[in-house]
Amino acid sequence: MNRRLVIALGGNALGNTPKQQLELVKKTASTIVDLVEEGYDVVVGHGNGPQVGMVNLAFENSHNNNGGTPEMPFPECGAMTQGYIGYHLQQSIGRELKLRGINKPVATIVTQVEVDKADKAFENPSKPIGSFYSKEAAEAIVKETGYTFIEDAGRGYRRVVPSPKPVSIVEIETVEKLVSQGCIVITVGGGGIPVVKNDDYFEGVAAVIDKDRASAKLALDLKADMLVILTAVEKVSLNFNKPEQKDLDEMSLDEAQRYIEEGHFAKGSMLPKVESCIEYVKTTDNGKALITSLEKAKEALRGQTGTIVHK
Amino acid sequence: MNRRLVIALGGNALGNTPKQQLELVKKTASTIVDLVEEGYDVVVGHGNGPQVGMVNLAFENSHNNNGGTPEMPFPECGAMTQGYIGYHLQQSIGRELKLRGINKPVATIVTQVEVDKADKAFENPSKPIGSFYSKEAAEAIVKETGYTFIEDAGRGYRRVVPSPKPVSIVEIETVEKLVSQGCIVITVGGGGIPVVKNDDYFEGVAAVIDKDRASAKLALDLKADMLVILTAVEKVSLNFNKPEQKDLDEMSLDEAQRYIEEGHFAKGSMLPKVESCIEYVKTTDNGKALITSLEKAKEALRGQTGTIVHK
Repeated sequence: MNRRLVIALGGNALGNTPKQQLELVKKTASTIVDLVEEGYDVVVGHGNGPQVGMVNLAFENSHNNNGGTPEMPFPECGAMTQGYIGYHLQQSIGRELKLRGINKPVATIVTQVEVDKADKAFENPSKPIGSFYSKEAAEAIVKETGYTFIEDAGRGYRRVVPSPKPVSIVEIETVEKLVSQGCIVITVGGGGIPVVKNDDYFEGVAAVIDKDRASAKLALDLKADMLVILTAVEKVSLNFNKPEQKDLDEMSLDEAQRYIEEGHFAKGSMLPKVESCIEYVKTTDNGKALITSLEKAKEALRGQTGTIVHK
Repeated sequence: MNRRLVIALGGNALGNTPKQQLELVKKTASTIVDLVEEGYDVVVGHGNGPQVGMVNLAFENSHNNNGGTPEMPFPECGAMTQGYIGYHLQQSIGRELKLRGINKPVATIVTQVEVDKADKAFENPSKPIGSFYSKEAAEAIVKETGYTFIEDAGRGYRRVVPSPKPVSIVEIETVEKLVSQGCIVITVGGGGIPVVKNDDYFEGVAAVIDKDRASAKLALDLKADMLVILTAVEKVSLNFNKPEQKDLDEMSLDEAQRYIEEGHFAKGSMLPKVESCIEYVKTTDNGKALITSLEKAKEALRGQTGTIVHK
C-alpha cells in the first residue's frame, strides 16, 4: 500500500486573479505529481483567503450598486471558491499526470466541515472579511443583519467572523473511498464550508475554518502517514528574521509546545501551522508532520530539508 | 444490483437567490430520496442558467464599478456554481437521508466536460449571458476582448457564447467509482465546466453545454438503466397549450423524431430534452428515458405517469 499524504496548500499561493491562479497551480501540480511519482497517495487541502474575499467582495459591490444580484452568504461564497480553485487544481494536476504518462483520476469534492456552535470562537469573531465601511455605514449593517464589525487599523470598519475549530468533515467517507482507490482528492477547500449541527442536520454558518487545522483533521481521519503543510519558507525557524535566527530540522511535541510558549511563531502565520502539526501528531499512532515550501516538498519528503514535527 | 438512474434537474427549479435555492432544494432532496427508497442508485446532473448568470453579473458589475475584483472568465463562473449548487443539494439530500434513517454518502464532484473545438456551435454563438449594453459599449468590449454580442429583442446588446455538444466527461472515472459504491453523486453541474482539448490537456472555454445533453452523456457512460429529465410538466405533449393538446405516455425513437419534424417541441425548452432522450436511447442497449416533473417522479418511475422514450 502507498503511503498517504495530506497536503495543506496556502490560499495566498494561488494568486489574486483567475489568470494568476491558473499560472500558479502549474507549480503546485508539478510538486503534487512529483510526490505521486515518489509513491505517495496524495490528498490536497487548500486555503481560500484571497479567493473567498474576492467572491464576497464582488457580490457585495454588485448588491450595493443595485446590480440585480442577491446578497451572497459567506458559506455559499466559500462553496463557490471550492469549485473555482478545485477546477484549476484538478485541471492542472490532470495535465501534469498526462504529461508524465501517469493514469490516475483527480477529483474535487465539495466539502462541508462541521464546527461546534458552542466553540468559544463564536463569542469573539476575529477574522476580517469583505470591504471597509464608515462607522455609520457599518452601524447600519449591524442593525440590519446582526453582523459584527471591528475597526481595522484606522482604515475603517470591517465585518469579522469567528474562526472555530473543525469538529468533523461531513464528506469524509467519500474522500476515503476515493483515496483508497488511488484517486488524487482535493477537499476541505478554504478549511471547508463551515456548518453547524441543528436539530436535524447541518446548516451553513458565517465563519472561517483554518485550512491547516482542517487539513490536520483530514489527515487524522484518513490515517495519513504524514501531514504536509506547505508555506512560504523551507523550514520553521526560531527567532525568525532576527540575527540569531535558527532553522529547525525537527521538533518533538514538547519542544514545539515550548517554542510556542516562548513566542517564536507569529499568530495567523506560523503559529496555526505548528499548532495543527501538534494536534495531528499527538493524536495519531505513527503520523508525523512536515512544514516546508512547495518548491522543497520533494526533497523534504526524502528527509533532506523541511521541519519535521514528531512524538 | 440496484438500478441506476441519472436525473437531470433544471437550473430554473433552483430559484434566483441563495435563500430561494436553499428552500427549493428541499423538495428536490425529498424526491431524490424517494427514489433511493424505491431501490435506485441516483446520479444527479443539474442546470445552472440563472445561477451562472448571477455569478457572471456580480463579477461584471463589481469590475465595471472598479470594485477591486478581477474579471471572471465564464468557465470559472460555471465552476463556482457547481460548488454553490452542489453544496445546497448535498446538504439537503444529506438531511433528508438522515431523517429517513438511510446511511448513504452524498457528494458533489467538480466536473469538466470536454467539447470539440470544431463543433459547429463555435461558428454561431447563440446563448446570451450577462448584462445588456448599449451598441457603443458592446463594440468597445468586442474590440478589447473579441467576444461576440447580439442585439437582444430591443433591450440592448448582450454577449453570446456557443452551446456545443458534450464529447466526454473528464471526471467520469471518479463518478463511476462513487456510484458503484452506493454514493449519491452530483455532477455535470450546469452541463459541466466546458473545456476543449489543446496540445497537452484541457482548457476552459466560454460556452454553455446543455445540461440535458450532458446528463444523457452521463447516463450513457454510466450505463444507467434510465435517464430521467425533470421539468415543469408531468408529460410531454403534442400541440402543447393548444385546444388539441395531447399528452404522451410514451414514444418510440421514430415517433419522437417525427414529432420533432412536425415542430411539436419548443426550441430551448422541450426540444433539447426530447433530443437528449433520443440520443441516449438510440445508443444504449436497454436504456429508456423518462420526462416528467419533480413532483411526479416517483409515480412516473412506477409507470403511473410521465412520458417514456423507448426504442
